[in-house]
Amino acid sequence: MSTATKPETLIDQLSELHGNSPHDLQPKTKELKIMNTAIKSETLINQLNWRYATKQFDPNRKISVSDWTTLEEALRLTPSSGGLQPWKFVVVTDPAVRAKLRPASYGQAQITDASHLVVFTAKNNLSEADVDAHIRHIAEVQGAPIEALAPLRGMLVGGIVQSQDEAGRNAWARNQAFIALGNLLTSAALLGIDACPMEGFDHAQYDEILGLKAKGYSSAVIATLGYRLSTDKYASAPKVRFAREHIFLNV
Amino acid sequence: MSTATKPETLIDQLSELHGNSPHDLQPKTKELKIMNTAIKSETLINQLNWRYATKQFDPNRKISVSDWTTLEEALRLTPSSGGLQPWKFVVVTDPAVRAKLRPASYGQAQITDASHLVVFTAKNNLSEADVDAHIRHIAEVQGAPIEALAPLRGMLVGGIVQSQDEAGRNAWARNQAFIALGNLLTSAALLGIDACPMEGFDHAQYDEILGLKAKGYSSAVIATLGYRLSTDKYASAPKVRFAREHIFLNV
Repeated sequence: MSTATKPETLIDQLSELHGNSPHDLQPKTKELKIMNTAIKSETLINQLNWRYATKQFDPNRKISVSDWTTLEEALRLTPSSGGLQPWKFVVVTDPAVRAKLRPASYGQAQITDASHLVVFTAKNNLSEADVDAHIRHIAEVQGAPIEALAPLRGMLVGGIVQSQDEAGRNAWARNQAFIALGNLLTSAALLGIDACPMEGFDHAQYDEILGLKAKGYSSAVIATLGYRLSTDKYASAPKVRFAREHIFLNV
Repeated sequence: MSTATKPETLIDQLSELHGNSPHDLQPKTKELKIMNTAIKSETLINQLNWRYATKQFDPNRKISVSDWTTLEEALRLTPSSGGLQPWKFVVVTDPAVRAKLRPASYGQAQITDASHLVVFTAKNNLSEADVDAHIRHIAEVQGAPIEALAPLRGMLVGGIVQSQDEAGRNAWARNQAFIALGNLLTSAALLGIDACPMEGFDHAQYDEILGLKAKGYSSAVIATLGYRLSTDKYASAPKVRFAREHIFLNV
Protein backbone atom coordinates (compact mmCIF):
# COMPACT_ATOMS: atom_id res chain seq x y z
CA MET A 1 0.00 0.00 0.00
CA SER A 2 1.53 3.29 -1.01
CA THR A 3 1.51 6.21 1.37
CA ALA A 4 -0.26 8.22 -1.35
CA THR A 5 -3.35 6.10 -0.91
CA LYS A 6 -3.39 5.80 2.84
CA PRO A 7 -6.75 4.61 4.11
CA GLU A 8 -8.48 6.32 6.99
CA THR A 9 -8.43 3.13 8.96
CA LEU A 10 -7.64 -0.51 8.44
CA ILE A 11 -9.11 -3.58 10.00
CA ASP A 12 -7.03 -6.63 10.66
CA GLN A 13 -4.74 -5.99 7.75
CA LEU A 14 -1.67 -6.85 9.71
CA SER A 15 -1.63 -10.39 8.43
CA GLU A 16 -2.42 -9.19 4.92
CA LEU A 17 0.71 -7.13 5.18
CA HIS A 18 2.68 -9.98 6.69
CA GLY A 19 2.01 -11.85 3.44
CA ASN A 20 3.63 -9.05 1.47
CA SER A 21 6.53 -8.64 3.84
CA PRO A 22 10.02 -9.57 2.74
CA HIS A 23 10.29 -11.43 6.03
CA ASP A 24 8.37 -14.60 6.52
CA LEU A 25 6.18 -14.04 9.52
CA GLN A 26 4.72 -17.51 9.56
CA PRO A 27 3.92 -17.86 13.25
CA LYS A 28 6.61 -19.72 15.13
CA THR A 29 4.23 -20.99 17.77
CA LYS A 30 2.54 -24.22 16.91
CA GLU A 31 -0.43 -24.10 14.57
CA LEU A 32 -3.88 -23.79 16.03
CA LYS A 33 -6.46 -26.03 14.45
CA ILE A 34 -9.86 -25.08 15.75
CA MET A 35 -12.79 -27.31 14.84
CA ASN A 36 -15.78 -25.60 13.33
CA THR A 37 -18.65 -26.26 15.74
CA ALA A 38 -21.24 -24.15 13.95
CA ILE A 39 -24.78 -23.81 15.26
CA LYS A 40 -27.99 -24.05 13.26
CA SER A 41 -29.54 -21.03 11.55
CA GLU A 42 -32.74 -21.56 13.51
CA THR A 43 -30.88 -21.27 16.82
CA LEU A 44 -29.21 -18.01 15.83
CA ILE A 45 -32.39 -16.37 14.57
CA ASN A 46 -34.43 -17.65 17.49
CA GLN A 47 -32.00 -16.19 20.04
CA LEU A 48 -31.82 -12.86 18.19
CA ASN A 49 -35.60 -12.74 18.36
CA TRP A 50 -35.55 -13.87 22.00
CA ARG A 51 -33.37 -10.94 22.96
CA TYR A 52 -34.84 -7.47 23.50
CA ALA A 53 -33.79 -4.28 25.22
CA THR A 54 -34.62 -5.49 28.72
CA LYS A 55 -36.41 -2.92 30.86
CA GLN A 56 -36.96 -4.89 34.04
CA PHE A 57 -34.07 -6.94 35.34
CA ASP A 58 -34.45 -9.31 38.26
CA PRO A 59 -32.36 -7.52 40.92
CA ASN A 60 -31.89 -10.80 42.78
CA ARG A 61 -30.53 -12.86 39.91
CA LYS A 62 -26.85 -12.57 39.12
CA ILE A 63 -24.93 -13.83 36.10
CA SER A 64 -22.72 -16.69 37.31
CA VAL A 65 -18.96 -16.21 37.47
CA SER A 66 -18.58 -18.84 34.79
CA ASP A 67 -21.04 -17.17 32.37
CA TRP A 68 -19.56 -13.75 33.05
CA THR A 69 -16.09 -15.09 32.30
CA THR A 70 -17.45 -16.35 28.98
CA LEU A 71 -18.91 -12.95 28.13
CA GLU A 72 -15.64 -11.21 29.01
CA GLU A 73 -13.78 -13.64 26.79
CA ALA A 74 -16.22 -12.98 23.95
CA LEU A 75 -15.63 -9.23 24.40
CA ARG A 76 -11.88 -9.74 24.48
CA LEU A 77 -12.06 -11.59 21.15
CA THR A 78 -13.83 -8.68 19.41
CA PRO A 79 -12.03 -7.75 16.17
CA SER A 80 -10.93 -4.15 15.70
CA SER A 81 -9.41 -1.95 13.05
CA GLY A 82 -5.74 -2.81 12.67
CA GLY A 83 -6.20 -5.13 15.64
CA LEU A 84 -5.56 -2.10 17.85
CA GLN A 85 -8.29 -2.77 20.45
CA PRO A 86 -8.56 0.92 21.41
CA TRP A 87 -10.81 0.25 24.38
CA LYS A 88 -11.27 -0.65 27.99
CA PHE A 89 -14.41 -2.31 29.27
CA VAL A 90 -15.38 -1.02 32.69
CA VAL A 91 -17.42 -3.62 34.55
CA VAL A 92 -19.32 -1.94 37.34
CA THR A 93 -20.67 -4.21 40.05
CA ASP A 94 -20.19 -2.00 43.15
CA PRO A 95 -23.73 -1.00 44.24
CA ALA A 96 -22.52 2.38 45.51
CA VAL A 97 -21.05 3.30 42.12
CA ARG A 98 -24.12 1.97 40.33
CA ALA A 99 -26.26 4.19 42.58
CA LYS A 100 -24.17 7.20 41.53
CA LEU A 101 -24.43 6.30 37.85
CA ARG A 102 -28.20 5.92 37.87
CA PRO A 103 -29.02 9.65 38.09
CA ALA A 104 -26.44 10.16 35.30
CA SER A 105 -28.54 7.73 33.24
CA TYR A 106 -31.90 9.52 33.42
CA GLY A 107 -32.80 7.40 36.43
CA GLN A 108 -33.19 4.22 34.42
CA ALA A 109 -33.70 1.23 36.70
CA GLN A 110 -31.49 -1.14 34.71
CA ILE A 111 -28.42 0.72 35.97
CA THR A 112 -28.95 -0.51 39.52
CA ASP A 113 -31.10 -3.62 38.95
CA ALA A 114 -29.14 -5.51 36.29
CA SER A 115 -26.57 -8.05 37.35
CA HIS A 116 -23.73 -6.38 35.45
CA LEU A 117 -23.11 -2.98 33.88
CA VAL A 118 -20.44 -2.61 31.20
CA VAL A 119 -19.20 0.82 30.17
CA PHE A 120 -17.57 0.60 26.74
CA THR A 121 -14.82 3.19 26.67
CA ALA A 122 -12.74 4.36 23.73
CA LYS A 123 -9.11 5.47 23.81
CA ASN A 124 -8.61 9.22 23.64
CA ASN A 125 -6.23 10.49 21.00
CA LEU A 126 -4.58 7.21 19.96
CA SER A 127 -0.87 7.80 19.51
CA GLU A 128 2.25 6.26 17.99
CA ALA A 129 3.05 4.92 21.46
CA ASP A 130 -0.20 2.91 21.36
CA VAL A 131 0.73 1.50 17.97
CA ASP A 132 4.16 0.59 19.36
CA ALA A 133 2.61 -1.26 22.29
CA HIS A 134 0.46 -3.19 19.82
CA ILE A 135 3.44 -4.00 17.59
CA ARG A 136 5.43 -5.30 20.58
CA HIS A 137 2.45 -7.44 21.53
CA ILE A 138 2.19 -8.94 18.03
CA ALA A 139 5.91 -9.68 18.06
CA GLU A 140 5.53 -11.44 21.38
CA VAL A 141 2.43 -13.47 20.51
CA GLN A 142 3.43 -14.41 16.99
CA GLY A 143 7.14 -14.81 17.64
CA ALA A 144 8.07 -12.27 14.99
CA PRO A 145 11.03 -9.87 15.19
CA ILE A 146 9.99 -6.25 15.82
CA GLU A 147 11.95 -5.09 12.77
CA ALA A 148 9.83 -7.30 10.51
CA LEU A 149 6.77 -5.45 11.76
CA ALA A 150 8.09 -2.03 10.68
CA PRO A 151 5.91 -1.93 7.52
CA LEU A 152 2.83 -2.73 9.57
CA ARG A 153 3.77 -0.09 12.12
CA GLY A 154 4.14 2.43 9.31
CA MET A 155 0.78 1.52 7.88
CA LEU A 156 -1.00 1.87 11.22
CA VAL A 157 0.74 5.10 12.18
CA GLY A 158 0.15 6.59 8.72
CA GLY A 159 -3.36 5.26 8.22
CA ILE A 160 -4.84 5.74 11.66
CA VAL A 161 -2.73 8.12 13.78
CA GLN A 162 -1.44 10.65 11.25
CA SER A 163 -4.22 10.73 8.66
CA GLN A 164 -6.77 12.04 11.15
CA ASP A 165 -7.00 14.83 13.67
CA GLU A 166 -7.73 14.11 17.31
CA ALA A 167 -11.51 14.24 16.77
CA GLY A 168 -11.16 11.79 13.88
CA ARG A 169 -9.04 9.41 15.94
CA ASN A 170 -11.57 9.56 18.77
CA ALA A 171 -14.48 8.88 16.40
CA TRP A 172 -12.51 5.96 14.95
CA ALA A 173 -11.94 4.50 18.44
CA ARG A 174 -15.61 4.97 19.35
CA ASN A 175 -16.63 3.06 16.21
CA GLN A 176 -14.53 0.13 17.41
CA ALA A 177 -16.30 0.18 20.79
CA PHE A 178 -19.59 -0.25 18.93
CA ILE A 179 -18.26 -3.41 17.22
CA ALA A 180 -17.64 -4.74 20.73
CA LEU A 181 -21.18 -3.77 21.76
CA GLY A 182 -22.66 -5.61 18.74
CA ASN A 183 -20.57 -8.66 19.54
CA LEU A 184 -21.53 -8.64 23.23
CA LEU A 185 -25.26 -8.28 22.54
CA THR A 186 -25.27 -11.19 20.10
CA SER A 187 -23.04 -13.30 22.35
CA ALA A 188 -25.27 -12.70 25.38
CA ALA A 189 -28.40 -13.51 23.34
CA LEU A 190 -26.84 -16.78 22.22
CA LEU A 191 -26.10 -17.71 25.84
CA GLY A 192 -29.65 -16.81 26.89
CA ILE A 193 -28.51 -13.84 28.95
CA ASP A 194 -30.55 -10.64 28.80
CA ALA A 195 -29.08 -7.26 27.96
CA CYS A 196 -30.06 -3.67 27.36
CA PRO A 197 -27.78 -1.44 25.27
CA MET A 198 -28.10 2.19 26.34
CA GLU A 199 -26.96 5.50 24.91
CA GLY A 200 -29.20 7.51 27.20
CA PHE A 201 -26.63 8.56 29.75
CA ASP A 202 -24.52 11.62 30.47
CA HIS A 203 -21.13 10.83 29.01
CA ALA A 204 -19.32 13.60 30.88
CA GLN A 205 -20.76 12.50 34.22
CA TYR A 206 -19.81 8.88 33.56
CA ASP A 207 -16.27 9.92 32.66
CA GLU A 208 -16.09 11.92 35.89
CA ILE A 209 -17.59 9.28 38.20
CA LEU A 210 -15.40 6.51 36.76
CA GLY A 211 -12.26 8.67 36.53
CA LEU A 212 -11.89 7.83 32.86
CA LYS A 213 -10.17 11.01 31.70
CA ALA A 214 -7.12 10.36 33.86
CA LYS A 215 -6.94 6.90 32.32
CA GLY A 216 -7.09 8.35 28.78
CA TYR A 217 -10.47 6.93 27.83
CA SER A 218 -14.02 8.23 27.26
CA SER A 219 -17.34 6.46 27.69
CA ALA A 220 -18.86 5.50 24.32
CA VAL A 221 -21.91 3.40 25.12
CA ILE A 222 -23.12 1.14 27.94
CA ALA A 223 -24.89 -2.19 28.32
CA THR A 224 -26.66 -3.69 31.30
CA LEU A 225 -26.88 -7.48 31.51
CA GLY A 226 -28.70 -10.00 33.66
CA TYR A 227 -32.06 -11.73 33.64
CA ARG A 228 -35.48 -10.36 32.76
CA LEU A 229 -38.33 -10.27 35.26
CA SER A 230 -41.40 -12.18 34.12
CA THR A 231 -43.40 -8.95 34.57
CA ASP A 232 -41.47 -7.13 31.82
CA LYS A 233 -44.16 -6.88 29.16
CA TYR A 234 -41.69 -5.68 26.56
CA ALA A 235 -40.26 -9.19 26.36
CA SER A 236 -43.28 -10.17 24.31
CA ALA A 237 -43.82 -6.95 22.34
CA PRO A 238 -43.43 -7.42 18.58
CA LYS A 239 -40.01 -6.23 17.38
CA VAL A 240 -40.04 -3.11 15.24
CA ARG A 241 -37.65 -3.63 12.36
CA PHE A 242 -37.82 -2.36 8.80
CA ALA A 243 -38.72 -4.95 6.16
CA ARG A 244 -35.86 -6.50 4.23
CA GLU A 245 -36.64 -4.56 1.08
CA HIS A 246 -36.32 -1.31 3.01
CA ILE A 247 -32.82 -1.91 4.34
CA PHE A 248 -31.12 -4.15 1.78
CA LEU A 249 -29.90 -2.92 -1.57
CA ASN A 250 -28.75 -5.61 -3.97
CA VAL A 251 -26.11 -4.62 -6.46
CA MET B 1 -37.69 12.46 30.88
CA SER B 2 -37.63 16.22 30.95
CA THR B 3 -36.47 18.17 27.93
CA ALA B 4 -33.91 19.82 30.22
CA THR B 5 -32.04 16.55 30.46
CA LYS B 6 -32.23 15.40 26.89
CA PRO B 7 -29.72 12.67 26.18
CA GLU B 8 -27.52 12.75 23.12
CA THR B 9 -28.92 9.48 21.96
CA LEU B 10 -31.14 6.75 23.27
CA ILE B 11 -31.23 3.07 22.53
CA ASP B 12 -34.48 1.19 22.53
CA GLN B 13 -36.06 3.44 25.06
CA LEU B 14 -39.31 3.54 23.20
CA SER B 15 -40.80 0.80 25.28
CA GLU B 16 -39.42 2.37 28.46
CA LEU B 17 -41.34 5.43 27.50
CA HIS B 18 -44.42 3.44 26.59
CA GLY B 19 -44.48 2.29 30.17
CA ASN B 20 -44.67 5.88 31.35
CA SER B 21 -47.21 6.93 28.78
CA PRO B 22 -50.71 7.88 29.86
CA HIS B 23 -51.91 5.56 27.09
CA ASP B 24 -51.55 1.85 27.52
CA LEU B 25 -49.45 0.68 24.63
CA GLN B 26 -49.62 -2.98 25.51
CA PRO B 27 -49.22 -4.53 22.06
CA LYS B 28 -52.55 -5.40 20.51
CA THR B 29 -51.09 -8.19 18.39
CA LYS B 30 -50.89 -11.50 20.16
CA GLU B 31 -48.06 -12.08 22.58
CA LEU B 32 -44.89 -13.63 21.30
CA LYS B 33 -43.45 -16.31 23.51
CA ILE B 34 -40.04 -17.26 22.21
CA MET B 35 -38.33 -20.24 23.79
CA ASN B 36 -34.81 -19.68 25.03
CA THR B 37 -32.65 -22.09 23.00
CA ALA B 38 -29.30 -20.94 24.37
CA ILE B 39 -26.04 -22.49 23.22
CA LYS B 40 -23.14 -23.61 25.38
CA SER B 41 -20.36 -21.23 26.40
CA GLU B 42 -17.81 -23.57 24.80
CA THR B 43 -19.54 -23.30 21.42
CA LEU B 44 -19.58 -19.49 21.50
CA ILE B 45 -15.94 -19.15 22.50
CA ASN B 46 -14.82 -21.86 20.10
CA GLN B 47 -16.52 -20.16 17.15
CA LEU B 48 -15.14 -16.73 18.12
CA ASN B 49 -11.69 -18.30 18.14
CA TRP B 50 -12.42 -20.15 14.89
CA ARG B 51 -13.18 -16.87 13.12
CA TYR B 52 -10.39 -14.65 11.84
CA ALA B 53 -10.05 -11.83 9.33
CA THR B 54 -10.01 -14.09 6.29
CA LYS B 55 -7.42 -13.13 3.71
CA GLN B 56 -7.95 -15.87 1.12
CA PHE B 57 -11.50 -16.72 0.20
CA ASP B 58 -12.35 -19.65 -2.04
CA PRO B 59 -13.63 -17.84 -5.16
CA ASN B 60 -15.58 -20.94 -6.20
CA ARG B 61 -17.51 -21.43 -3.00
CA LYS B 62 -20.66 -19.40 -2.49
CA ILE B 63 -22.76 -18.93 0.62
CA SER B 64 -26.06 -20.75 0.02
CA VAL B 65 -29.24 -18.74 -0.45
CA SER B 66 -30.57 -20.23 2.74
CA ASP B 67 -27.51 -19.25 4.82
CA TRP B 68 -27.41 -15.80 3.26
CA THR B 69 -31.05 -15.30 4.11
CA THR B 70 -30.19 -16.15 7.71
CA LEU B 71 -27.35 -13.62 7.80
CA GLU B 72 -29.59 -10.92 6.34
CA GLU B 73 -32.20 -11.69 8.97
CA ALA B 74 -29.54 -11.49 11.69
CA LEU B 75 -28.49 -8.09 10.33
CA ARG B 76 -32.09 -6.93 10.16
CA LEU B 77 -32.55 -7.80 13.84
CA THR B 78 -29.59 -5.62 14.93
CA PRO B 79 -30.63 -3.25 17.73
CA SER B 80 -30.04 0.47 17.25
CA SER B 81 -30.31 3.69 19.20
CA GLY B 82 -33.97 4.62 19.57
CA GLY B 83 -34.71 1.68 17.29
CA LEU B 84 -34.12 4.06 14.37
CA GLN B 85 -32.09 1.66 12.18
CA PRO B 86 -30.30 4.52 10.37
CA TRP B 87 -28.74 2.25 7.77
CA LYS B 88 -28.91 0.41 4.52
CA PHE B 89 -26.88 -2.73 3.87
CA VAL B 90 -25.64 -2.84 0.30
CA VAL B 91 -25.02 -6.44 -0.75
CA VAL B 92 -22.74 -6.47 -3.77
CA THR B 93 -22.66 -9.70 -5.77
CA ASP B 94 -22.32 -8.31 -9.33
CA PRO B 95 -18.76 -9.23 -10.42
CA ALA B 96 -18.46 -6.08 -12.54
CA VAL B 97 -19.20 -3.83 -9.56
CA ARG B 98 -16.90 -5.88 -7.34
CA ALA B 99 -14.13 -5.42 -9.95
CA LYS B 100 -14.67 -1.64 -9.76
CA LEU B 101 -14.61 -1.64 -5.97
CA ARG B 102 -11.38 -3.62 -5.68
CA PRO B 103 -9.05 -0.79 -6.74
CA ALA B 104 -11.00 1.45 -4.33
CA SER B 105 -10.04 -1.07 -1.62
CA TYR B 106 -6.25 -1.01 -2.04
CA GLY B 107 -6.52 -3.96 -4.39
CA GLN B 108 -7.42 -6.42 -1.67
CA ALA B 109 -8.39 -9.78 -3.10
CA GLN B 110 -11.29 -10.41 -0.74
CA ILE B 111 -13.33 -7.77 -2.57
CA THR B 112 -13.58 -9.92 -5.69
CA ASP B 113 -12.97 -13.42 -4.27
CA ALA B 114 -15.38 -13.57 -1.35
CA SER B 115 -18.86 -14.93 -1.90
CA HIS B 116 -20.58 -11.78 -0.62
CA LEU B 117 -19.59 -8.18 0.04
CA VAL B 118 -21.68 -6.05 2.40
CA VAL B 119 -21.25 -2.29 2.51
CA PHE B 120 -22.63 -0.94 5.78
CA THR B 121 -23.98 2.51 5.08
CA ALA B 122 -25.19 5.14 7.52
CA LYS B 123 -27.97 7.65 6.98
CA ASN B 124 -26.80 11.18 6.21
CA ASN B 125 -28.23 13.95 8.34
CA LEU B 126 -31.06 12.06 10.04
CA SER B 127 -34.15 14.29 10.12
CA GLU B 128 -37.52 14.65 11.78
CA ALA B 129 -39.02 12.98 8.70
CA ASP B 130 -36.96 9.87 9.46
CA VAL B 131 -38.23 9.87 13.03
CA ASP B 132 -41.79 10.23 11.72
CA ALA B 133 -41.36 7.24 9.40
CA HIS B 134 -40.12 5.22 12.38
CA ILE B 135 -43.02 6.35 14.55
CA ARG B 136 -45.54 5.37 11.87
CA HIS B 137 -43.84 2.00 11.63
CA ILE B 138 -44.05 1.42 15.41
CA ALA B 139 -47.73 2.38 15.34
CA GLU B 140 -48.34 -0.12 12.56
CA VAL B 141 -46.37 -3.01 14.08
CA GLN B 142 -47.49 -2.54 17.66
CA GLY B 143 -51.05 -1.42 16.90
CA ALA B 144 -50.63 1.83 18.82
CA PRO B 145 -52.29 5.14 17.88
CA ILE B 146 -49.79 7.67 16.44
CA GLU B 147 -50.89 10.27 19.03
CA ALA B 148 -49.83 7.98 21.86
CA LEU B 149 -46.33 7.96 20.39
CA ALA B 150 -45.96 11.74 20.53
CA PRO B 151 -43.80 11.66 23.69
CA LEU B 152 -41.47 9.13 22.06
CA ARG B 153 -41.33 11.23 18.90
CA GLY B 154 -40.42 14.27 20.99
CA MET B 155 -37.71 12.35 22.79
CA LEU B 156 -36.12 11.08 19.57
CA VAL B 157 -36.35 14.41 17.77
CA GLY B 158 -34.99 16.28 20.80
CA GLY B 159 -32.39 13.73 21.79
CA ILE B 160 -31.02 12.67 18.43
CA VAL B 161 -32.01 15.15 15.69
CA GLN B 162 -31.94 18.52 17.45
CA SER B 163 -29.27 18.00 20.10
CA GLN B 164 -26.52 17.44 17.54
CA ASP B 165 -25.25 19.15 14.43
CA GLU B 166 -25.11 17.33 11.10
CA ALA B 167 -21.63 15.94 11.81
CA GLY B 168 -22.83 14.66 15.18
CA ARG B 169 -25.89 13.01 13.64
CA ASN B 170 -23.71 11.35 11.01
CA ALA B 171 -21.25 10.08 13.63
CA TRP B 172 -24.20 8.74 15.62
CA ALA B 173 -25.55 6.88 12.56
CA ARG B 174 -22.09 5.50 11.79
CA ASN B 175 -21.83 4.14 15.34
CA GLN B 176 -25.05 2.22 14.77
CA ALA B 177 -23.62 0.67 11.59
CA PHE B 178 -20.74 -0.68 13.68
CA ILE B 179 -23.20 -2.42 16.02
CA ALA B 180 -24.53 -4.16 12.90
CA LEU B 181 -20.98 -5.11 11.87
CA GLY B 182 -20.28 -6.60 15.31
CA ASN B 183 -23.52 -8.54 15.18
CA LEU B 184 -22.85 -9.83 11.65
CA LEU B 185 -19.30 -10.97 12.44
CA THR B 186 -20.41 -12.92 15.49
CA SER B 187 -23.47 -14.33 13.69
CA ALA B 188 -21.36 -15.51 10.75
CA ALA B 189 -18.79 -17.07 13.09
CA LEU B 190 -21.56 -18.95 14.89
CA LEU B 191 -22.80 -20.32 11.56
CA GLY B 192 -19.28 -21.34 10.53
CA ILE B 193 -19.14 -18.76 7.75
CA ASP B 194 -15.92 -16.83 7.23
CA ALA B 195 -15.73 -13.06 7.16
CA CYS B 196 -13.26 -10.21 6.92
CA PRO B 197 -14.24 -6.78 8.28
CA MET B 198 -12.43 -4.02 6.39
CA GLU B 199 -11.97 -0.31 6.89
CA GLY B 200 -9.21 -0.08 4.32
CA PHE B 201 -11.21 1.34 1.44
CA ASP B 202 -11.81 4.73 -0.10
CA HIS B 203 -15.13 5.85 1.32
CA ALA B 204 -15.68 8.59 -1.27
CA GLN B 205 -15.03 6.21 -4.16
CA TYR B 206 -17.41 3.63 -2.69
CA ASP B 207 -20.10 6.28 -2.27
CA GLU B 208 -19.58 7.32 -5.88
CA ILE B 209 -19.51 3.81 -7.42
CA LEU B 210 -22.59 2.71 -5.46
CA GLY B 211 -24.48 5.99 -5.94
CA LEU B 212 -24.95 6.31 -2.20
CA LYS B 213 -25.06 10.09 -1.94
CA ALA B 214 -28.22 10.31 -4.05
CA LYS B 215 -29.79 7.77 -1.73
CA GLY B 216 -28.83 9.82 1.34
CA TYR B 217 -26.34 7.36 2.81
CA SER B 218 -22.55 7.09 3.24
CA SER B 219 -20.36 4.02 3.44
CA ALA B 220 -19.21 3.35 7.01
CA VAL B 221 -17.42 -0.01 6.91
CA ILE B 222 -17.46 -3.17 4.81
CA ALA B 223 -17.33 -6.92 5.35
CA THR B 224 -16.56 -9.71 2.91
CA LEU B 225 -18.01 -13.15 3.63
CA GLY B 226 -17.58 -16.65 2.25
CA TYR B 227 -15.29 -19.59 2.90
CA ARG B 228 -11.57 -19.67 3.61
CA LEU B 229 -9.11 -21.42 1.32
CA SER B 230 -7.11 -24.13 3.06
CA THR B 231 -3.95 -22.30 1.95
CA ASP B 232 -4.75 -19.22 4.07
CA LYS B 233 -2.07 -19.53 6.72
CA TYR B 234 -3.64 -16.76 8.81
CA ALA B 235 -6.42 -19.15 9.78
CA SER B 236 -4.00 -20.81 12.16
CA ALA B 237 -2.03 -17.77 13.33
CA PRO B 238 -2.39 -17.09 17.06
CA LYS B 239 -4.86 -14.30 17.75
CA VAL B 240 -3.37 -11.09 19.07
CA ARG B 241 -5.58 -9.81 21.87
CA PHE B 242 -4.68 -7.93 25.01
CA ALA B 243 -4.85 -9.92 28.24
CA ARG B 244 -7.98 -9.57 30.33
CA GLU B 245 -6.27 -7.46 32.97
CA HIS B 246 -5.26 -4.97 30.28
CA ILE B 247 -8.74 -4.28 28.95
CA PHE B 248 -11.09 -4.89 31.88
CA LEU B 249 -11.47 -2.48 34.76
CA ASN B 250 -13.52 -3.74 37.67
CA VAL B 251 -15.33 -1.13 39.70
